[in-house]
This record gives sequence, C-alpha cells and structure tokens, in this order.
Amino acid sequence: MTKNTKVNAAILIIGNEILSGRTQDTNTTSLAIWLNSLGVQVSEVRVIPDIKKKIIETLNVLREKNNYVFTTGGIGPTHDDITAESVSEAFGLKYEIHKEAFKILERYYKPGEFNEGRQKMVWMPQNAELILNPTSGAPGFSVKNVFCLPGVPSILKSMLGGLKNKIVGGEPILSHTISLRTVESEIANSLTKVQKENKEVEIGSYPFFHAGKLGVSIVLRSENQSKIDECNSQILKFVNEKKIEIVNR
Amino acid sequence: MTKNTKVNAAILIIGNEILSGRTQDTNTTSLAIWLNSLGVQVSEVRVIPDIKKKIIETLNVLREKNNYVFTTGGIGPTHDDITAESVSEAFGLKYEIHKEAFKILERYYKPGEFNEGRQKMVWMPQNAELILNPTSGAPGFSVKNVFCLPGVPSILKSMLGGLKNKIVGGEPILSHTISLRTVESEIANSLTKVQKENKEVEIGSYPFFHAGKLGVSIVLRSENQSKIDECNSQILKFVNEKKIEIVNR
Repeated sequence: MTKNTKVNAAILIIGNEILSGRTQDTNTTSLAIWLNSLGVQVSEVRVIPDIKKKIIETLNVLREKNNYVFTTGGIGPTHDDITAESVSEAFGLKYEIHKEAFKILERYYKPGEFNEGRQKMVWMPQNAELILNPTSGAPGFSVKNVFCLPGVPSILKSMLGGLKNKIVGGEPILSHTISLRTVESEIANSLTKVQKENKEVEIGSYPFFHAGKLGVSIVLRSENQSKIDECNSQILKFVNEKKIEIVNR
Repeated sequence: MTKNTKVNAAILIIGNEILSGRTQDTNTTSLAIWLNSLGVQVSEVRVIPDIKKKIIETLNVLREKNNYVFTTGGIGPTHDDITAESVSEAFGLKYEIHKEAFKILERYYKPGEFNEGRQKMVWMPQNAELILNPTSGAPGFSVKNVFCLPGVPSILKSMLGGLKNKIVGGEPILSHTISLRTVESEIANSLTKVQKENKEVEIGSYPFFHAGKLGVSIVLRSENQSKIDECNSQILKFVNEKKIEIVNR
C-alpha cells in the first residue's frame, strides 16, 4: 500500500456488557485516536453481543469493506470469551493451541499456575500472528487484516505500541479546532457556505456547554494543511464580521 | 405486542466526531440502561459517519431487524446535520416543514431570533411524530419504529421521559452481580459448568481493577428471577468451596 491512499478501519466491540449499559466503552476512543495518528480513518464501529454467529457474520462483512478491522473483547479465559473461536470459523481456519503463545504464558505464570482456564487463552486461529501484551501476559492475535485485542481498556492501550509497525496508514488526517462563544444557529448559514467552497475539508460543528456557558467547536479535518488553513481564514472572516468571541478550549 | 415477547432495539450513533475519537460517546450507555428498564434489549450499536447514503443503508437494515431503532446526532441547524433528510429518504417520505415543530420553535425563541439556521430544525419527514425537548426547544421525531434524538447527551437524556409511553417492552431483563476477589482463570471452569446447566441465564464474567486490587464481576441476566436465584446459589457454592472472598462493588 503506498502513501496517499485513503486507508480505513472498522472497530468491532464484542461484549454484552456494553449493550446492557453496564460498562461504558472507551476502547473506541482510544483506538480511533491512535488510528488517526497513523493515517487510518475509522469508517464505522459496531457493538455486538457474545454470539458466535453474529461475530462471524459481522467480521466477514467488515473485513471485506475495510483495510483493517480491530476487535475488542472476548479473548479471556471464561466461557463467554468466544472471539478466537469465532475468528477461526470466519476465516475457515483450525482453532488450535498456538505454540508460541503457550510458551509465553508458561513462562509468565508461576509453576502450577498455568491451569486449564488460562490455557484456553492460547487457543487461536491456526498460524495467527501474536500481539504481545506487556501488562498481563496473554497475547492478542491477528489474522490477515483482523486484529483481536482484549476488552480491558488499560491492557488494550498497552498493546497498541507493539502493533504500530504492522499498520500501514495513508496520509495522516490533520485537524484544526476553532471554539466560539456562540450557538450553532448563528453561524449555520455562513458555515454551509464555507463547506460548499471547501469540499476537501470535512467541517464539523459541535455545540458544547462548558463552565456555565454555551459554545460551538468547529472542527476542520483534511489530509491537506493548506486547505485547512484556507478554510480556517474564511471562517475567521465571518466570525470577525459577526463579532463572535473566540474561546480557548 | 404482548408481554413475554422478546423486544429488541438497535442504536445508531451518527457522527464523525465519535469516529475520529474527538468525542467519547455516552449516549449508548444512557439509552441501553433506559431501554433495559423498559424490557427492551439492545441487539447492536453502530457508529457511522455523517454520510447520507450510509445513514439510509444502515437505517434500512436496522429497522427491519429490530423492534425499535434509536438514532442520535445530526438533527441540529448546521450543514452536517443530515439525519432528518436521510430518514425521509430511507422511508420514501417527503422532507418538509413540520407545522407543529415550527409553532413550538416560534414560541420558544424571542421575536426575530427564529432565523433561517434554526428553521432548518423543523424540516422533518412528512407526518413525523414529535419527541418533545424540555431542554432546548427543538424537538426530535419518530417515523414508525425509528426514533431520532439529538447527540448532546444532556438534551438526549431529558427527552427520554416523554418517550416512555411510546415504547412497548417485553419482560424486564433482571440482573444480579456477584463480585469476587479472584481472577477469571480461577473460576473459568466452574463458571462454564454453571452456564451449561443454566441456559436461560446469560452469565457474563468481567475482570475489574479497583482500589489497587484485581477482581471479577459475574453478571447474571434473565427475565426470570427464580432462574437467576438458582444460578446464583450454584455460583456461591463453588465460591465457598474455593474459599474466594466476595466483595462489595
């Protein structure tokens, strides 16, 4: 893959605990920020339950449509951890003991502690590539363009560093934010005009409420800094004309 | 719809700001907890960009497969707010001024303040039902089984109360949590056995790290309290035998 190509990824969050509202997902944000920094744009996120058929179906759709797919959750030692088995089926690969992962965990645990429950974590799709886990031993894995990470946010984050060289991104997506003491409806028309004249910049408008005051953050995103700059000056022009205060956020 | 039927919903989060990692979605958790309390189970969540074609396609898939669909985001006054237009197209309905919504906003704003930007917010699918907004005036809307809510979390939450009577849920999903001072691999086998003997209870196992100590929360979910109780006592039995400490969380 050469630079200048758009590179996209999907995130697949596997876990009933997110769908029940019991657990607040934060892995999407961590992965999205990290992927952006590598020039990979997140095209969509799906959260699905721990159901094998659903995991296989969703994975097969997402891996066709995206350069990369990142899954989180379901790679621990308990009965509801079915990601590795599901990924094996999705790719039509054997689900078997990964010798290298076995050695890693054998070394990681004290003698006698590498029990049957823990051994479940070394069952993976045949010939999976390991993603090392500096926090708690048990590695994640990848098969082709699918990268399987754990659900626990601190462990997931600690594994991203080791993954960096396996991801080939496009041009990094640059962004610039302008925060204004105004409401969206005051600037909506002017902003529409700027968006129409700057099709290569994605302009987002996000109301905020901070320290008791309303405001709007305008976010400019593009791979091209000079286009962001041009767009920025057009926005500052109407902000000036309307005498809207710019705030730091 | 009679009680005892399983009722499910999908959540569709519309917004580039979530996919870029700039904004942490919390609406999924708010909606999921609220839907659970009404006996509606969230079957899946999707986060997609502000692209009309993508919104229409995704909406048409989700509304076929679920009793309800809740969208968040994209109903404000700016150029990137395209949810109402997209929903109109998805249902093949005219996108037009909603007279009742117009009256509401005309009363809500001071004379002269109901400008063109704000008037965009009263454009909706023909004959949409309004979802009143006690926080900031501009209503959401529903068409058949699709309910469109704003992206700002505090405004979204304030609108749920008024929606309650429009949602017919099934049996409420009951849950019980047992938190243990242990690690998953110590209990994985016993838990698998209990899950096999209690197929009507969904048993989830979630490691946590709290106040410097590791633990595992076991979550039992079912529509049937006596089945949860039976499952609970089987778990307490092996917890006792293994001399695992139960913790309050």
